Amino acid sequence: MRIAVDVMGSDKCPVPDVEGAVLAAKEFKNTILLVGDETKIQHELEKYETRELSLEIVHARQTITMTDKPGVSGKEKPDSSMHVGMNLIADGKADAFVTAGNTGAALAIATLFTLHRIPGVKRPALGSIIRLPENRSIILLDIGANTDSKPDWLMQYGIMGSIYAQRTSGILKPRIALLSNGEEDGKGSQLVVETSQLMKESHLNYVGNIEPRAMLKGDADVIVSDGFVGNLVIKSFEAMGSALSDLIRKEIRRDLRSKLGGLLAIPAFRRVAKQIDPFEIGGAPLLGVNGVVIIGHGRSDAIAIKNAIRQARLAVISGVIPSIQEGLRKSSV
Amino acid sequence: MRIAVDVMGSDKCPVPDVEGAVLAAKEFKNTILLVGDETKIQHELEKYETRELSLEIVHARQTITMTDKPGVSGKEKPDSSMHVGMNLIADGKADAFVTAGNTGAALAIATLFTLHRIPGVKRPALGSIIRLPENRSIILLDIGANTDSKPDWLMQYGIMGSIYAQRTSGILKPRIALLSNGEEDGKGSQLVVETSQLMKESHLNYVGNIEPRAMLKGDADVIVSDGFVGNLVIKSFEAMGSALSDLIRKEIRRDLRSKLGGLLAIPAFRRVAKQIDPFEIGGAPLLGVNGVVIIGHGRSDAIAIKNAIRQARLAVISGVIPSIQEGLRKSSV
Repeated sequence: MRIAVDVMGSDKCPVPDVEGAVLAAKEFKNTILLVGDETKIQHELEKYETRELSLEIVHARQTITMTDKPGVSGKEKPDSSMHVGMNLIADGKADAFVTAGNTGAALAIATLFTLHRIPGVKRPALGSIIRLPENRSIILLDIGANTDSKPDWLMQYGIMGSIYAQRTSGILKPRIALLSNGEEDGKGSQLVVETSQLMKESHLNYVGNIEPRAMLKGDADVIVSDGFVGNLVIKSFEAMGSALSDLIRKEIRRDLRSKLGGLLAIPAFRRVAKQIDPFEIGGAPLLGVNGVVIIGHGRSDAIAIKNAIRQARLAVISGVIPSIQEGLRKSSV
Repeated sequence: MRIAVDVMGSDKCPVPDVEGAVLAAKEFKNTILLVGDETKIQHELEKYETRELSLEIVHARQTITMTDKPGVSGKEKPDSSMHVGMNLIADGKADAFVTAGNTGAALAIATLFTLHRIPGVKRPALGSIIRLPENRSIILLDIGANTDSKPDWLMQYGIMGSIYAQRTSGILKPRIALLSNGEEDGKGSQLVVETSQLMKESHLNYVGNIEPRAMLKGDADVIVSDGFVGNLVIKSFEAMGSALSDLIRKEIRRDLRSKLGGLLAIPAFRRVAKQIDPFEIGGAPLLGVNGVVIIGHGRSDAIAIKNAIRQARLAVISGVIPSIQEGLRKSSV
C-alpha cells in the first residue's frame, strides 16, 4: 500500500507532517509518499533514521496556506502539494492521501480538480470520527463540506457513513440517526423531517432522531446532519471540553488542598485527556470522492498525522471506496 | 411586584415548585402567586413557615404534562395552570410568570392564547442565559422557539436580545454576534449570510460571526441563531459537560492514588459544579410576548425555581417589556 502525505499541510509544517509520516512508515510498514517542497523534506528527513523505511519524496512546487480561498487555490495553484498528492491517487500511484491543510481547499481540489465525485454522489461529505469511552467510536457527517443541504444529500451522507462504519469498524448493520432538537418523530427542521421520510423508505438501519447527549452515549453509529449544524455541534463539544478543562485546572490551583488533590489525581486526568484527545483519531474522512482522503486538524502534531495515516490505511484495507461506489449504484437517491 | 409561579410545571411538581416559590417570597419580599391545584398547593404549603410571607393561591383545575402536544394543550386545556398564570399578566394581576413545564406548550399558550406577540414581533424567541466564569453571562437566542427561521426574525432576536442584555445586565452597548461555522464575513448558511447584511445596516452593535469557542470566552454578549441550531448548540454544551464530568469521576475512582486526589480536590470540584450549574440561572426568558415569561428546566429543583423567579423579577424591575415594545416600534425590520 502506498499512502501520500501532504507535508505542507499542518500549521507547523513540514515538521510534524514529516515526523508523522516517518512514524507511520515505521509502524505500519507501508510506503509513504512525502508530497511537498523537496528541499524542505530532505532537510527534515535528515533528523530521522530512515534506512529501513519505505519513504519516497514527490516534489510539489506550490503550497496552499490556511488563508487561501478554496476555489481560488484550486485554480491558481495547480502544482500545490494537495493537487499533486491527490493526483497520485487519480493516476494509480497512491492508494490514499492525508493532509492537515486548509479543509475548504482540500475539498475543492478533491471534488473539482483531481479526484472528482463518485458517480451518483450529489455532494461529498466530511465525516468526523468521535471517540467514546471503552474504545467505541461514532461518525458524524457532514461536519462542514456543505451548508444548506438538501434531503437527498443527507440521505446519501447516511449511505456513505453507513458503509464507512460497516467497513472500518466491522459493524454489521450500523444504526443511522438524524441529528435533531428532539427525539420524537416529526421534531426538527424541515430538512430533518423530509430526510427522515427518505431514511424510513431506505434499506438503512435508520433509528430516528438523535440529540447530542444520546450521541455521546453511543446510541447510534452514524449521525447525519447538514454541514453547518454538524460543524457547530463538533465545535460546541470541543469548546465545552476545553472550557471545562480550563475551569477545573483553575479551580484546582485556587486552594492548597485541591492543588495537592490535583497532583495526586494526575493519572486519572491523563487517562481522561487521552480518551478525549481528537488527535487520537487524527483525521476526518472526506466521503464521496474517488479516493481515500483524510483531512487532519491544522494543529496536528506528529502523532495526529500518524493516526490520520492509520485511518487512511484502514479505509484502503477495508475497501471503503469500492463499497461506496457500489452502494450508490444500488441506491435510488 | 407580583410574580405568578406555575406550581404544576416541574417533573416533580408541585414539590420543588412550591418550595422554590416559598424561598423566593422569603428572599425577595415580593408577592408570589402559586398557580395550580389548590388542594395540592395547600398541602405542600403546610410544610413551611409562611406566616410572614406574601403568598396567594390561584386555583387552576387543569395541568399540562410534558407529553401534551403544544397546540392541542393550548386549545383543549383552557384552564391549565399555564393559561391561568399567563392570564394573570394579561389581566394586570401579575407582573411575570414562571414555569418549569412543557416548553412547547408554554410557547404556544403565551403566543396564541394569552399574552400574544408584542406588536411588530414576527416570532417570539426563547433565550438561554449562559453563565461564564467571573460572574459574566451571555444570552443565546433562539434556543428552540422556531426552526427554519428567516433573516428578519433573526434580526429581531438580535434587537430583543440586545435590549434584554442592556436592561438586565446594564451593558451599555451589548455586542451582538451571529452563531456561525467560521468567523470570517461571508461564512455560514444562507440564513447567516443574509441576516449579517441586515445586522450591518442596523443600529445594533453587531460584531460579526462567532463560533462556540469564542462564545464561551464571552467575545459577544448576545448570540443570535435559528432555534434549531441554537437548541443543538446548548444541548451539545450540556452533553459534553456531563460526559466529561462522568468520565473524570470514573477515571478518578479507577486507582487509589487518584481516588485520594479526588477526595482532596472536592472543594475545587464543588466550585466548578456551581459555576456550570444551569440551575444557578434557573430559567430562559421568552422574548417577544406581552409579558415577562421565564421557562425553567423540567428537572428544576427548588433553588432553580427560586432563581427563575429572580430572573423574572429582574426583567420586571428593569422594564424589559416596555423597552422591547419601544425598540420594535423604532425598528424597521
